[in-house]
Amino acid sequence: MAKPPSSTSMRKTAKPSLRLRPVAIDTYHENVAYLNRSCELYRAEGFQALSKIVVQANGRKIYALLNVVDDEAIVTGDELGLAEQAFDQLGLKAGDEVCVDHAETPASMDAVRRKIGGERLSLDDFRDITRDIVANRYSKMEMAAFLVSSTHMGLDRNEVLDLTRAMTESGDRIRWDEELVADKHCIGGIPNNRTTMIIVPIVAAHGLLIPKTSSRAITSPAGTADTMSVLAEVKLTPEQMHKVVSKTRACLAWGGTARLAPADDILISVERPLGIDSEGQMVASIISKKLAAGATHLLIDIPIGASAKVRHMDHALRLRKLFEFVGDRVGIHVEVMITDGSEPIGRGIGPVLEARDVLQVLENDPAAPLDLRQKSLRLAGRILEFDPDVRGGQGYALARDILESGRALQRMRKIIQAQGEIELVLQPGKLIREVFAERDGMIVSIDNQQMNKIARIAGAPLDRGAGVDLLKKVGDKVKKGEALYRIHAEFNADFNFAVSLSEQQSGYRIGDEHEIIRIDLEE
Amino acid sequence: MAKPPSSTSMRKTAKPSLRLRPVAIDTYHENVAYLNRSCELYRAEGFQALSKIVVQANGRKIYALLNVVDDEAIVTGDELGLAEQAFDQLGLKAGDEVCVDHAETPASMDAVRRKIGGERLSLDDFRDITRDIVANRYSKMEMAAFLVSSTHMGLDRNEVLDLTRAMTESGDRIRWDEELVADKHCIGGIPNNRTTMIIVPIVAAHGLLIPKTSSRAITSPAGTADTMSVLAEVKLTPEQMHKVVSKTRACLAWGGTARLAPADDILISVERPLGIDSEGQMVASIISKKLAAGATHLLIDIPIGASAKVRHMDHALRLRKLFEFVGDRVGIHVEVMITDGSEPIGRGIGPVLEARDVLQVLENDPAAPLDLRQKSLRLAGRILEFDPDVRGGQGYALARDILESGRALQRMRKIIQAQGEIELVLQPGKLIREVFAERDGMIVSIDNQQMNKIARIAGAPLDRGAGVDLLKKVGDKVKKGEALYRIHAEFNADFNFAVSLSEQQSGYRIGDEHEIIRIDLEE
Repeated sequence: MAKPPSSTSMRKTAKPSLRLRPVAIDTYHENVAYLNRSCELYRAEGFQALSKIVVQANGRKIYALLNVVDDEAIVTGDELGLAEQAFDQLGLKAGDEVCVDHAETPASMDAVRRKIGGERLSLDDFRDITRDIVANRYSKMEMAAFLVSSTHMGLDRNEVLDLTRAMTESGDRIRWDEELVADKHCIGGIPNNRTTMIIVPIVAAHGLLIPKTSSRAITSPAGTADTMSVLAEVKLTPEQMHKVVSKTRACLAWGGTARLAPADDILISVERPLGIDSEGQMVASIISKKLAAGATHLLIDIPIGASAKVRHMDHALRLRKLFEFVGDRVGIHVEVMITDGSEPIGRGIGPVLEARDVLQVLENDPAAPLDLRQKSLRLAGRILEFDPDVRGGQGYALARDILESGRALQRMRKIIQAQGEIELVLQPGKLIREVFAERDGMIVSIDNQQMNKIARIAGAPLDRGAGVDLLKKVGDKVKKGEALYRIHAEFNADFNFAVSLSEQQSGYRIGDEHEIIRIDLEE
Repeated sequence: MAKPPSSTSMRKTAKPSLRLRPVAIDTYHENVAYLNRSCELYRAEGFQALSKIVVQANGRKIYALLNVVDDEAIVTGDELGLAEQAFDQLGLKAGDEVCVDHAETPASMDAVRRKIGGERLSLDDFRDITRDIVANRYSKMEMAAFLVSSTHMGLDRNEVLDLTRAMTESGDRIRWDEELVADKHCIGGIPNNRTTMIIVPIVAAHGLLIPKTSSRAITSPAGTADTMSVLAEVKLTPEQMHKVVSKTRACLAWGGTARLAPADDILISVERPLGIDSEGQMVASIISKKLAAGATHLLIDIPIGASAKVRHMDHALRLRKLFEFVGDRVGIHVEVMITDGSEPIGRGIGPVLEARDVLQVLENDPAAPLDLRQKSLRLAGRILEFDPDVRGGQGYALARDILESGRALQRMRKIIQAQGEIELVLQPGKLIREVFAERDGMIVSIDNQQMNKIARIAGAPLDRGAGVDLLKKVGDKVKKGEALYRIHAEFNADFNFAVSLSEQQSGYRIGDEHEIIRIDLEE
């Protein structure tokens, strides 16, 4: 069946054009356009609210969801309003003439429908899908359809490989002109766990290149980029990033400015709120991002624990195989470490509190959280062993030497200065409440998800000093009435809500030593 | 894991309330709320654009998608703006105080995630899902996730049954206090095919109760409600509908005013644009609507043909079994007729042109389209045989007698008057273009989808006179240069676009008699 001509050349003569007007509404990751109901075009075309339109001018083109406006103060009958994101994307000036048309369903939705019907998709199918997603041709619900169709047993490992390739090709790719570019990634879910800010200076001090980009928190109380931003500027242009890396062999930047595997960012904006959890999507997402960032060697951290994302060893092992399968075929050396995710790593949860922990470790402060220090050294050691000159099994000792000699701290200072230092005020939130033990005993478990939730409700990461400060960890003995942790907040409402949440469920379980569940890990 | 308290009672004291302000933006089936970026609440809560919020006051509650506004002219820092749909739904006045909170993901999304993971769902799961959908707790992408998870082999027949029950319970139910309430439904896809407006007066003239509600077109050039609205008022309140039915034993109303199986309407607003096609959803949708409308006996029309929704007999038979299985268990007598869907039924496509065809049949006009007349009589005959007093096999003759005696036309006039007559101006669109045969031969096929598309692009159903008027049907002989059909439009731009579409592909194939594909049907 033929489709109507999608070119507007023919229509330009027949259709009135509209004047572009920015509308100061932030619609987040979705393009929205506003048309007055009296608009001649609206009338003739039978445009309906929530239909998808294509806006064109001067060879530029964007897709947007249409909202119909009944108020001339927002848009008049001969204007087309665009919400902030859509206006920026089109890149024209207010008052410029634009043409508007119905947007056809993206052609690659045929492939999605085939996937829903149980078919395997090809590399070309995944390329078509990611291209359409990056061009903003997919609505949120079309993306949800794609994600659900490829969840769980929906993608075989060759499809995950093809999806990885297609997502990598969907954006820019950084080249570092070095043989070995190291990177690390944790699949997430564990509070604090801020190892990256310790590993990167260690690895760079040894001389390996490790240009690290990280995300900001979306559903957690802090991402590495949030915590690093307490100490230094993290929003770097690609040029600034290259400059920092050439000076220090490393960076700790926010990944949001580069256009690396952009299809992935867009899909994540649908996947997270849906809370669907697709192994294939996750592996494709992580590897495509790292490939696009120019990494040649990648260490993946998979924490397992009762309140972690991965709860059983067989699941972790299955994930590891999938990472290895895809990594080998796209030419990135992937190693996977399965780590203890049974409780938070470190003490602070929230940007300022986590930055304090990181600095304590780097400064070899005797008060530094030991678990954060040891995990960081183990991961850093494995990365150092990517270096052919480092003997197998010597990485940990080498990493420890770099840390204890103060070279890691020195390198971190250099990175901070190169990125732009921020005047250091490590001030935790001024509203403070301690949560107390209800009985004598030993801490037998701490719920990762509950601690994340309390810290987030307290205001993290938006309020940098907000969060939770753990005073006791699993294995510690406590007396009834002893403080387990402190809640910090900046605003009354958030504070009260976080306190009330901790009263409902503290997240701590106190019992006897034999109740502690230890996970058998490779070392 | 505990969830934060969802009651706002605790927060009311801590949180500032906001003044409600209507925002004149039509967001169609989605609730949207607008908050100024300077709003203290926004600041403290870390609300993000596109997060879902819950708005409460005076025991009323709605869910809405949040957009952040940077313009005081739209909303100020102490106001909460609501788009038209959301404002209407909340039912408060401008300036009323409201409280705003983060909306948690609807609890029934757990069931959707289990379905994605391959589990069977229970009746309670489907009840929870439909309840949350009707309460507008689901975003479009959450609905897409549910739909895709239950597509194709995703629902077994017992799940379809449970979904039907849950959807039926999701809204009101009309009771007619009669033993036999007849209804009919066609699964759609065939242009014109306006049998309902002929069947209903025939069945009502015989004395059976047939209170018919129909939809407006969403993706087609006309629905029964669009065509009927050319002749009579179709937007009836439940009270008006009862009055019309008590006077005439029938009605031909738009179903959109009643709250019948509302979960279905909301799901359709996602399913149609996605173009995903789930048998289970379709069967549950149709039967729940008819049950809620009070039908006891239902005739389903499944047209099959190369450009129809159902293309093969085995598919039609599978669907029939599913309709029968569900119908028997929810206590509605369902019969399925498989009909010829190889070309449009009737001549006109678009509200005015279809109304003309219907009136010609009812008036026994010798020019009336024979296929529309015959199909209507066959379907009406089957419905008449629901009457225990009608001998099996006599329905067709009985229906023909009622039509030929003028009693059907008389009854139709009565229905029109009872609903509210509209002054009759059957004026097809004034811009007219004929499309000509490119060779001598016989019409061997007409593409249903292409004819629908041309009629829709020409302006139907919004412009009532717009559409396509078929001058030749399958089996007709034509000479080169003879007219095949006429395009009618009201507006230049639409007209040019429809003409250009027909030039790309006329939708007609001319060949030799043996090329006509006949479908073997039960009679």
